[in-house]
Amino acid sequence: MSFRQNHLLGIEQLAPDEITTLLDLSDEYVTLNRSAEKHGDALNGLTQINMFFENSTRTQASFELAGKRLGADVMNMAMQASSIKKGETLIDTAMTLNAMHPDLLVVRHPHSGAVDLLSQKVNCAVLNAGDGRHEHPTQALLDALTIRRTKGRLHRLNIAICGDIAHSRVARSNMLLLHKMENRIRLIGPPTLVPSAFAELGCEVYENMEEGLKDVDVVMMLRLQKERMDGGFIPSEREYYHLYGLDAEKLAHAKEDAIVMHPGPMNRGVEIDGSIADDINRSVIQDQVEMGVAVRMAAMDLLARNLRARRAAAADAA
Amino acid sequence: MSFRQNHLLGIEQLAPDEITTLLDLSDEYVTLNRSAEKHGDALNGLTQINMFFENSTRTQASFELAGKRLGADVMNMAMQASSIKKGETLIDTAMTLNAMHPDLLVVRHPHSGAVDLLSQKVNCAVLNAGDGRHEHPTQALLDALTIRRTKGRLHRLNIAICGDIAHSRVARSNMLLLHKMENRIRLIGPPTLVPSAFAELGCEVYENMEEGLKDVDVVMMLRLQKERMDGGFIPSEREYYHLYGLDAEKLAHAKEDAIVMHPGPMNRGVEIDGSIADDINRSVIQDQVEMGVAVRMAAMDLLARNLRARRAAAADAA
Amino acid sequence: MSFRQNHLLGIEQLAPDEITTLLDLSDEYVTLNRSAEKHGDALNGLTQINMFFENSTRTQASFELAGKRLGADVMNMAMQASSIKKGETLIDTAMTLNAMHPDLLVVRHPHSGAVDLLSQKVNCAVLNAGDGRHEHPTQALLDALTIRRTKGRLHRLNIAICGDIAHSRVARSNMLLLHKMENRIRLIGPPTLVPSAFAELGCEVYENMEEGLKDVDVVMMLRLQKERMDGGFIPSEREYYHLYGLDAEKLAHAKEDAIVMHPGPMNRGVEIDGSIADDINRSVIQDQVEMGVAVRMAAMDLLARNLRARRAAAADAA
Repeated sequence: MSFRQNHLLGIEQLAPDEITTLLDLSDEYVTLNRSAEKHGDALNGLTQINMFFENSTRTQASFELAGKRLGADVMNMAMQASSIKKGETLIDTAMTLNAMHPDLLVVRHPHSGAVDLLSQKVNCAVLNAGDGRHEHPTQALLDALTIRRTKGRLHRLNIAICGDIAHSRVARSNMLLLHKMENRIRLIGPPTLVPSAFAELGCEVYENMEEGLKDVDVVMMLRLQKERMDGGFIPSEREYYHLYGLDAEKLAHAKEDAIVMHPGPMNRGVEIDGSIADDINRSVIQDQVEMGVAVRMAAMDLLARNLRARRAAAADAA
Repeated sequence: MSFRQNHLLGIEQLAPDEITTLLDLSDEYVTLNRSAEKHGDALNGLTQINMFFENSTRTQASFELAGKRLGADVMNMAMQASSIKKGETLIDTAMTLNAMHPDLLVVRHPHSGAVDLLSQKVNCAVLNAGDGRHEHPTQALLDALTIRRTKGRLHRLNIAICGDIAHSRVARSNMLLLHKMENRIRLIGPPTLVPSAFAELGCEVYENMEEGLKDVDVVMMLRLQKERMDGGFIPSEREYYHLYGLDAEKLAHAKEDAIVMHPGPMNRGVEIDGSIADDINRSVIQDQVEMGVAVRMAAMDLLARNLRARRAAAADAA
Repeated sequence: MSFRQNHLLGIEQLAPDEITTLLDLSDEYVTLNRSAEKHGDALNGLTQINMFFENSTRTQASFELAGKRLGADVMNMAMQASSIKKGETLIDTAMTLNAMHPDLLVVRHPHSGAVDLLSQKVNCAVLNAGDGRHEHPTQALLDALTIRRTKGRLHRLNIAICGDIAHSRVARSNMLLLHKMENRIRLIGPPTLVPSAFAELGCEVYENMEEGLKDVDVVMMLRLQKERMDGGFIPSEREYYHLYGLDAEKLAHAKEDAIVMHPGPMNRGVEIDGSIADDINRSVIQDQVEMGVAVRMAAMDLLARNLRARRAAAADAA
């Protein structure tokens, strides 16, 4: 099996064959989730803890369902309400949890790098559910699965990522993944939201939506992260929608069969027109959510296999 | 089997034979819940999501236990803390959840009709756990089960519903159910809290407790929903208790073996005297809670059977 | 089997042989938790409800994992957000839960004695997860297990309990347990935080850390419970650390192989120096957390056995 990771910290660490392995297994879990008995046993006897230091109903729900459907004992910890408030450090919290012998630790944290740091302190497999502006690997993987299933391939596609790229770990993980799989990536947005540094990854940068969307196969919209903007130039929502909101007119510049993606939750009428979001011929936004559960099942399954193999090897050595 | 629903949206949609089927199965689950091993497998392999847009510890707990005891993978979503705050619409939230392939969706929402609307957008069975002032069908069903087990029948009883009827979905669902099962219903309360429109359902309306309670078999008290009153005449709690609070003196007008019910949580000393609530010869308030878990197990079991049958038929057709 | 309790309300009720039985079974669960398949079936078919009227992420997590790993249907109830706010009394809440037929009820409450009161109203086994300044029995048991495993015995040890003893149910339960198992207990802290009444339990009281720590086998630090202090003399954190914070210099007075304990969460630099807390040769703070899950599994397992035996006897009698 081509998946050699102990943790899923970011797309950066994954080789193309590992991405393919993960997506292949995800396809199987899509089938399971659509079947009458949507319960497997890959995580039987294992403990999954979800530690969300930032609220995210949708991502946490996706990981929770993924673990429960595979038979894990799943526990959510609302870290805002927790010992953090009593002055405990992240590392103390991690060590405390580690002592409870979890097997899978799903972590979201507002600081870039916090999840990597934490993974070095624990004995279990850690999954990054989003850390600061750094990475959100399962989002990129579910986007990749959605594209691969819709377009029939995951290479040599023209893919536009549009909007608030500067504040987006989703954009960053997607760029890394799509670049590894040899796609052509365009970044579209106002200069304040598209740092020029990203051009180094081989992305083309556009300030104009009509130009940037010309002949693309995939249009990835991003949520306008108002809460992350501090200082800088913030356009009014109305002006932003006029220039960068995806509507039928702008979408007409893309290929006729181009698909529209959004990681959710959407600001309808800000970064995307509601009728585009709801157009079942173009929008794959609901598919992305469906793929999310399957990708998280696959990721936890693969990490659990490696964890079991490491433990068996350690037991043999002892 | 006489249960033909795809959803449990309200009592309004149920025929008498469906109510009887559901209560018969509930009786079996009461027995299971009282046994040493209170775990069944009717919902094995299915996913239940509880979406509560209004807090309700007791109703959510009842549904959660019901699902877990029948083997479902159960997930709670605290919708106040969720994407709703990020501006997502109810329909977007529903579609997102639907993409995760739940089988049973339990929904409480502050707006009348919201649960019906939601049921039209999803592929799974939806259970209404209370929507605005509209319906709260499992409450009416658990009340019916409590009455049937205590009184030995669920027809031709004299049943008084007392108090804040105007703001109460509990009262509304109970009136519908008890009327369908051919009981005589009396509504007792101050004119401001008993809209005269209810008389159309064949209910007799009383302004005076002593008169209204005369010779009834069942006294259903309602919680004074202070939080729902806006404008209108609100009596002081003291005055309300004097006129409409159930005490021994008022209860003496009912039949000697009349039972006292309350959906909880109680305002002791406002709508009911504490000693009446605790009188195990008259009060069936704890029984109602017990019946609640059983009724929810039965409702989810029946809906799951129909869901599986629909899916099998669709698979055959394909 | 030497465990005769229907509830685990406090250390006060336990005889030494019962403590030994519980710790022996805990040792087995430590082994299970360290194994590849950390899931047992001792609580299969049973319902566990966690009712926390005070927040405690770590203790609740420990009980939740313990129950899930033994196959119970586990439900958490956040009691702050619950019916309590609607004016329901503790007893009404307890009776409501009881009607749902839980088997194990884990309760934390800010008032001393509240858990005992509650245990008298319900038909299931109640575990005290901390009540006011009264008892926190599973904490004392996990501390005892940690000591027994590290020191090889749980009697005739010199054990210092240091810091904010006056406000600590942890200290109180530990004193009771360590006294029953025939250890020599020293209490160290400023007079305002060490009520002289405790000397009656046979504890020696010290105001000076260096003197008190001399030749002890075990150093138990306590969290400075700032939130519980009302009035009284509160030293500055800086001064407190100078006099009573555990650092290398003070620890040097203890035995060379003395272990350092803390119930967590720690205030680093207030009651304990961070480098001591992290010193894997001295600190057993992570072990305490690990033992916590095992002790709670053992406690629930033993209580469930007694519960099943009582029910079987009642069924035979009927």
